Amino acid sequence: MISVAAGTVKYGGDAALDRLLARAGKGAGVRLATARAVRGLIRGVLAAPEGRDPEAWMALVADRPPGALRAQLAALKARMAQARPRPGLAPSERLPALREALGGMGVDGMIVPRADAHQGEYVPASAQRLAWLTGFTGSAGAAVVLPDTAALFVDGRYTLQARTEVDPARFAIQHVTRRPPAAWIEANLPRGARLGFDPWLLTPRDVARYGEACARAGGRLVALSRNPVDRLWRDRPADPISPIRPLALRFAGRSARAKRAEIAARLAASGVDAAILSAPDSIAWLLNIRGGDVGNSPLPLAFALVGSNRRVDLFTDPRKLTAAARRHLGPEVRVRAGAELGAALDALGRAGKAVLADPATAPFWIVRRLRRAGARLREGADPCQLPKACKNAVELKGIRAAHVRDGAALTRFLAWLAREAPRGRLTEMEAARVLESMRAENEHFQGLSFPTISGAGPHGAIVHYRVTERTDRALGPGEIYLLDSGAQYLDGTTDVTRTLFIGGGRKPTAAMRDHFTRVLKGHIALAMARFPAGTSGSQLDVLARNALWQAGLEYDHGTGHGVGHFLNVHEGPQRISQVPNSVALRTGMVISNEPGFYRPGAYGIRIENLVAVRPDGEAVDGRPMLAFETLTLAPIERALIDRRLLTAEERAWLDAYHARLRKMLTPRLDAATRRWLKGATAPI
Amino acid sequence: MISVAAGTVKYGGDAALDRLLARAGKGAGVRLATARAVRGLIRGVLAAPEGRDPEAWMALVADRPPGALRAQLAALKARMAQARPRPGLAPSERLPALREALGGMGVDGMIVPRADAHQGEYVPASAQRLAWLTGFTGSAGAAVVLPDTAALFVDGRYTLQARTEVDPARFAIQHVTRRPPAAWIEANLPRGARLGFDPWLLTPRDVARYGEACARAGGRLVALSRNPVDRLWRDRPADPISPIRPLALRFAGRSARAKRAEIAARLAASGVDAAILSAPDSIAWLLNIRGGDVGNSPLPLAFALVGSNRRVDLFTDPRKLTAAARRHLGPEVRVRAGAELGAALDALGRAGKAVLADPATAPFWIVRRLRRAGARLREGADPCQLPKACKNAVELKGIRAAHVRDGAALTRFLAWLAREAPRGRLTEMEAARVLESMRAENEHFQGLSFPTISGAGPHGAIVHYRVTERTDRALGPGEIYLLDSGAQYLDGTTDVTRTLFIGGGRKPTAAMRDHFTRVLKGHIALAMARFPAGTSGSQLDVLARNALWQAGLEYDHGTGHGVGHFLNVHEGPQRISQVPNSVALRTGMVISNEPGFYRPGAYGIRIENLVAVRPDGEAVDGRPMLAFETLTLAPIERALIDRRLLTAEERAWLDAYHARLRKMLTPRLDAATRRWLKGATAPI
Repeated sequence: MISVAAGTVKYGGDAALDRLLARAGKGAGVRLATARAVRGLIRGVLAAPEGRDPEAWMALVADRPPGALRAQLAALKARMAQARPRPGLAPSERLPALREALGGMGVDGMIVPRADAHQGEYVPASAQRLAWLTGFTGSAGAAVVLPDTAALFVDGRYTLQARTEVDPARFAIQHVTRRPPAAWIEANLPRGARLGFDPWLLTPRDVARYGEACARAGGRLVALSRNPVDRLWRDRPADPISPIRPLALRFAGRSARAKRAEIAARLAASGVDAAILSAPDSIAWLLNIRGGDVGNSPLPLAFALVGSNRRVDLFTDPRKLTAAARRHLGPEVRVRAGAELGAALDALGRAGKAVLADPATAPFWIVRRLRRAGARLREGADPCQLPKACKNAVELKGIRAAHVRDGAALTRFLAWLAREAPRGRLTEMEAARVLESMRAENEHFQGLSFPTISGAGPHGAIVHYRVTERTDRALGPGEIYLLDSGAQYLDGTTDVTRTLFIGGGRKPTAAMRDHFTRVLKGHIALAMARFPAGTSGSQLDVLARNALWQAGLEYDHGTGHGVGHFLNVHEGPQRISQVPNSVALRTGMVISNEPGFYRPGAYGIRIENLVAVRPDGEAVDGRPMLAFETLTLAPIERALIDRRLLTAEERAWLDAYHARLRKMLTPRLDAATRRWLKGATAPI
Repeated sequence: MISVAAGTVKYGGDAALDRLLARAGKGAGVRLATARAVRGLIRGVLAAPEGRDPEAWMALVADRPPGALRAQLAALKARMAQARPRPGLAPSERLPALREALGGMGVDGMIVPRADAHQGEYVPASAQRLAWLTGFTGSAGAAVVLPDTAALFVDGRYTLQARTEVDPARFAIQHVTRRPPAAWIEANLPRGARLGFDPWLLTPRDVARYGEACARAGGRLVALSRNPVDRLWRDRPADPISPIRPLALRFAGRSARAKRAEIAARLAASGVDAAILSAPDSIAWLLNIRGGDVGNSPLPLAFALVGSNRRVDLFTDPRKLTAAARRHLGPEVRVRAGAELGAALDALGRAGKAVLADPATAPFWIVRRLRRAGARLREGADPCQLPKACKNAVELKGIRAAHVRDGAALTRFLAWLAREAPRGRLTEMEAARVLESMRAENEHFQGLSFPTISGAGPHGAIVHYRVTERTDRALGPGEIYLLDSGAQYLDGTTDVTRTLFIGGGRKPTAAMRDHFTRVLKGHIALAMARFPAGTSGSQLDVLARNALWQAGLEYDHGTGHGVGHFLNVHEGPQRISQVPNSVALRTGMVISNEPGFYRPGAYGIRIENLVAVRPDGEAVDGRPMLAFETLTLAPIERALIDRRLLTAEERAWLDAYHARLRKMLTPRLDAATRRWLKGATAPI
């Protein structure tokens, strides 16, 4: 097949494209018959991240596009990508314009969350409303705009970043757990005021919480019929369009048919007729499909209704579906346009059906529509969430294999870094680029699972630091370098953090070694944990913090997040966190183990491996015991360890871990890396 | 003053008592003018536990009763105590009778909780409905009665006890966390069925939970206008009456006036006009009063409304108040009969007041009444709960002093036990009696803070074992003996568990030592914990379990409960537990540290000290750090320790603890106990 590099062929005009499409016709399986339709598609394609195959989208125009058509499609896309967007409001004009628009809508303020209608961590360009309004580009947060004041709420990972991105004269930056938006609203909303929100962007749980806060302040929370940000944001990108791809059974391990049957049985058993799914990763898991609408997570943005009769209505832009994807979905899955969702909910309501919605993730809009239509609403967890989190044997096998490949690439990188970095010219950006290129050589590689965090010295203390041209700096000798990275493979998702000492003739300070070793003690304590079935991650969290606390050290983030199988790098329902969470850890769950310590202005330390929950015998009273299998395979920096702080048991864990990874990775490594790895994994 | 031993004087009849009362008259401050009134009072007095002073109640008849009157009052009380109650239904008749009564009320079943209207752990005889119906006498639980089935729900402490007390043919015994009542109701309630409950005995939170369960089963939860158990229970005791006593400022540390001002300010700050208090310990704390309506906790059963204007309406039987108590309460506290509560709530509602109620502790009856009356209902924690839990400096000083006295008594007992027990004739009951007598010699002693758990060998595995004549057994040589006990003093409440090895020439088994040492490791890990402000007890819980889990051992109860200041031995809001709890530990909170391990049929192990939360410097980022001060002072059984399982740090903790308690207790001990203590606390 001819590959068309953008720019090599000139676009011949819409009339010529119309002719090309007509000529290709049914033989090529043409599905969009006009240049106008193709332009509409490309606007969506350009609003999605460019995937590994820049021509994959062409399958949405025709099943088998001939070479000339491909060339013209590429030329049109290149031209449209270069077109300047309509000029929009300058950043300083946005908050005043929003206040004015709100006044015109009869409300006094508005909640602007970072979330999209799917409550996802990675949101498409068209839903980056918080960034448009405030400048803040972190992956979680919310703003509240009131007539005379406005605040941005971010978590501990983002307090430093928010300060550099956001004008404090416009938005007071608040730590979301110390000063939650609800408390701030209660203290700041004027009596009698009406606070607006977009009912697609808040969940019923959000609405209950903010509604109470407004009531306590003597005001009211009001659902807006349209989002004023979207109207003011004149250069807002289109909704993303990216092909939906089947995930082969050899990766998924279980057919979509079997999954639908299981979910349907669960629904039927609890007397529910249908469940609304609003989490794209639940839909992707259920139907064994993947998409590319947002960065880093292979998600198709969609809603779905899954019935106790095993049928699924999939609400998404039908243009995303290739002929192959339609075949894969089969006759029991009906693809419908997003705009039809309301009518489908009304129909359920009219029939008096019992419909399950997750109050923590469903849009308030959906739940309100169901209620108004007369549906019997059942609140409960997304029924796919737990089965998706408990990986099946094929998924676990794939995840282990992905970690061997990923660990080999990371180890090659670390060996290279050990040679290159001491020269003092390597920068954060270059290091991240080299690591990505080494990973990209791996089989089944699909892209990074999140933007690499490559932070030298003080940048390491910015927990979710993202290097840019402006901030890029060299890895200096005597510095600590924090590298948090991961990849998506067809057989699994990885996420690993290593903290390295850039020697160059210098020695780490005693404080560096003390801090690193305490983080390591926490990591090992969690890795060695054994616990009865029924234990939640919240219960285990302190094991990772105890050694730090003894020395008055702490980290302001969770200890572990669930990780999907070629899906979201952050997934629930399990987590290891100080935030109370009563979800029991179960066999097959994959979760990160990542304590850290951050010294602002100096360095950041984090040691992260992914682990899988595995059975570990029985307690004396017969209850099943569980433990963790460490999946990640990459050496832990020996230069930063203060051996005297480790117990004999901790030293034994580290040596065994290093011996295991050396054995597993060595067959995949070049001679130079092997030599380096031998030293890097020598017994402590 | 003449002390009148019951039985030495014969009761002269009601007419004679009427004359005596009339003669004493105003000069004696007579407040109940007739024998009839006195009989009513005595019915309540007899339904309350007999306190340390069996004549204290006479102050409720007259401020200064003359000797002849006292003698007649004592004689009347003795006579009434011996009167046989009206014969009631036999245990086997109760469940069928209840089902019949429920049918007559138009419902199909009923929830019968152990709780009274105050959700207290110690409930008066008149509220022991669960025990009347099922036979189960534990301190927590609930029954659900349906037409064809009934179940009793108890927690892990009580599963063994329930099996011995309850007829399994009538009530299926369920583990409350593995099979909660709501889940059982959902599975067992017939479609269309109506499940009744007494709105005084469930909280709004209970009602929401059970209501949802009924709805899911296609049935309904229905508040009953009267409790059918109370009607069937013909020999039901009267509501208890015990004098309300002021607690002196030198014990309370803060005046009731100052406390009222603080609570009023908090209410005003959150826009609340009044709060309903239904927890007697909150009322006792707020008003610096104590009572004696239930066993082991010095509580006056009462409700109260506390206003943002600092005024308090105290709803309780006004006969409980002596003249001294009325003076102590002052003019800002209005004492009103319990029956007036409804009208008071209606008045708040009519005035459109904002009223705070705790949905976790208030009776549903109260919240429903407020709502129907038009009050603006605010849900939130009992406003006294947190300030009561954070003991002030005077309270802490008193608690420390009480622990020195209590520890000295316990240590005398342990030395005595070490001499007596090996002879093999000492029984569980006798041991508990001797320990109580030694404690009773202490200054400020007011009684036991809970029934002593004195469990030899297999009895130790029954977590809340209560020895009776029927179960009493000797402490056999080679056995483990578990002793959990505590006392109420005017200056503090104690609660301590020691697990002892009864040698008598035998040695503990390797398993005994392994189990004991792992429990000890958990105890020490928690005792040594250091943690940032904001940390909850739930977060720390795993520290106490980790060493046990590694060996597949577990205990089915919480690790630590809050303890009051001369109040409830179990108090909230803090706890150290696997159950998620987000209440941060704060300076001044007193909490138990009591991991354990139980081998059914063999032995139980528990090591319990009370600890107080104290400041412990700052973290490197400036946030305050906290740690525990161990309050309990009594040696830990060295014979059961496997020294090799302890780290150097753990050994150092134990030796330092023993050295400290020896130093503090020695001045209070006799020579024989001192000698014994020296050996019992020698470095490990």
